[in-house]
Amino acid sequence: MATAPPAGYTPTDLSTPTRSRERAAYDRATVHAILDEGYVCHLGFVRDGAPVVLPTLYARSGERLYVHGSTGSRPLRGAADDGLAVCLTVTHVDGLVLAKSAFHHSINYRSVVVHGTAYQVLDPDERAAALDAIVDHAVPGRSADSRRPNAKELASTAVIRLDLEEVSAKLRTGGPNEEPEDLELPHWSGVVPVVTSYGTPERAEIPGRDLPLPDYLPPAPRRR
Amino acid sequence: MATAPPAGYTPTDLSTPTRSRERAAYDRATVHAILDEGYVCHLGFVRDGAPVVLPTLYARSGERLYVHGSTGSRPLRGAADDGLAVCLTVTHVDGLVLAKSAFHHSINYRSVVVHGTAYQVLDPDERAAALDAIVDHAVPGRSADSRRPNAKELASTAVIRLDLEEVSAKLRTGGPNEEPEDLELPHWSGVVPVVTSYGTPERAEIPGRDLPLPDYLPPAPRRR
Repeated sequence: MATAPPAGYTPTDLSTPTRSRERAAYDRATVHAILDEGYVCHLGFVRDGAPVVLPTLYARSGERLYVHGSTGSRPLRGAADDGLAVCLTVTHVDGLVLAKSAFHHSINYRSVVVHGTAYQVLDPDERAAALDAIVDHAVPGRSADSRRPNAKELASTAVIRLDLEEVSAKLRTGGPNEEPEDLELPHWSGVVPVVTSYGTPERAEIPGRDLPLPDYLPPAPRRR
Repeated sequence: MATAPPAGYTPTDLSTPTRSRERAAYDRATVHAILDEGYVCHLGFVRDGAPVVLPTLYARSGERLYVHGSTGSRPLRGAADDGLAVCLTVTHVDGLVLAKSAFHHSINYRSVVVHGTAYQVLDPDERAAALDAIVDHAVPGRSADSRRPNAKELASTAVIRLDLEEVSAKLRTGGPNEEPEDLELPHWSGVVPVVTSYGTPERAEIPGRDLPLPDYLPPAPRRR
C-alpha cells in the first residue's frame, strides 16, 4: 500500500531562515502554489569554489522540478556525472511596503528555496515530458500546439531534475510594521501593489500566414 | 587628473556565457540600466560547500552595489570578516516567445550577473547613505519622506557592498527563431509581452491620519 506523502517538507538547518522565521512555511500546498505561479527561477551552483546564479526556465511535476538547459551549459555538464549541488529559488514580488520609518520599509513577496542535488535526465521519455512541461508551465496548453522536437533538437537540449525534499517557502504579506511612537508622523504609509500581467500578443509576421490567436493566449494571469 | 572609467566591463572566464554568447553585453550603460530598473536581486553564496540563493533588496551607486540585510543573516556574517564570494543576479522578464517548434520557445529577458567579493559596510556615513539608496531604489524620493533611522535601528541593520568589476549583461529581444521548414505550420507564433506595473496604493489605516498620496506614488513604471 502506498504511503501518502506527508503534508509538509521537514525543515533542516539549510532550509530554516536565520531571520524572520515567522515568515517561513513548509506545507506543500503553499510551496507548490508559489512554484506553479512562476516559470523563471534563479539556479545557483558552485563553480571552482565560487557561487554562480543564473536565471533559467523550470517546471514542476509532482515532487520534482525540471530545469531547461543546453547540453553545453555549465550546470548541465556538472549534473551529467555525479549530480550537482544546487539551490533553486523562485520569487514573486507582490508589493512595496512603505512605513513611517525608513527602517520598516519592506516588500511583500512569496519565495521558495529548494536545496538539493540536480541530475541530468537521461530517460528519453522523461526528458520529452519535461520539455513539454517547461513549455506548458509558461503557457498552459502550448506544447500540444507546436511542432514536436526532432532527434537533433532533443540531442542538443538537456534537462536536469531536482526533487523537492529540502524546501522552504517564505512570505511577507500585509501592511507596514510601525513603531507606536511613529504613528502620528506625517509620512504616508501603506502598500503599493506590484502587478505582473500580459500585454497584447504580438504575432510574428509571416507572409500569408495570419493565424488567429489561440484560445490559450494570453495566458490567464497568475500573479495578482 | 582622474581617468575616465572605461566604457565597458572586461569579460572574464566567469562572465563569459558558455551558451548564446551573442546575447552577452558588457557596456556600462546597458548594465546600469538593467540594474536600475530592478530592486530585488538574487544573491548567491556558498555555505558549507553548498550554494545558497536568496532574494534581497539592492541599490546601485556608481560602480558599487549595496545589498540590505540583518546583522544576523548568513551572508552578512560571512561578509563581516574577510569578505564573501558572491554572485548577484538581476533578471527582468519582458516576454514569452512562442515559436512554431517547441524547441525554439524562449523568453525575452534582460539580466545582469555580478561576480565578486562582498564586504560589510562599516563606515556609518556610507551605511546610512546606502540604506537611503536602497529605499530610493524601490521608490525614488521616499527616503527623504520617512523617519530617519535611530541608533538602535542602524545597529541592527547591515549592508554589504559589491563593486561592479566582473559583470555581464545578457539580453534576448525580438520574435521567435524559426526553422525555414516550419514557417508554414499552422501554429500561432509571436511574442506575449510580460508587463510589471504598480496597482493603486493601499493606505495603512491609522485613525485620524488620512494623509494624501505623495507625488512620488505610485513610482513611475520602469518596466515596459
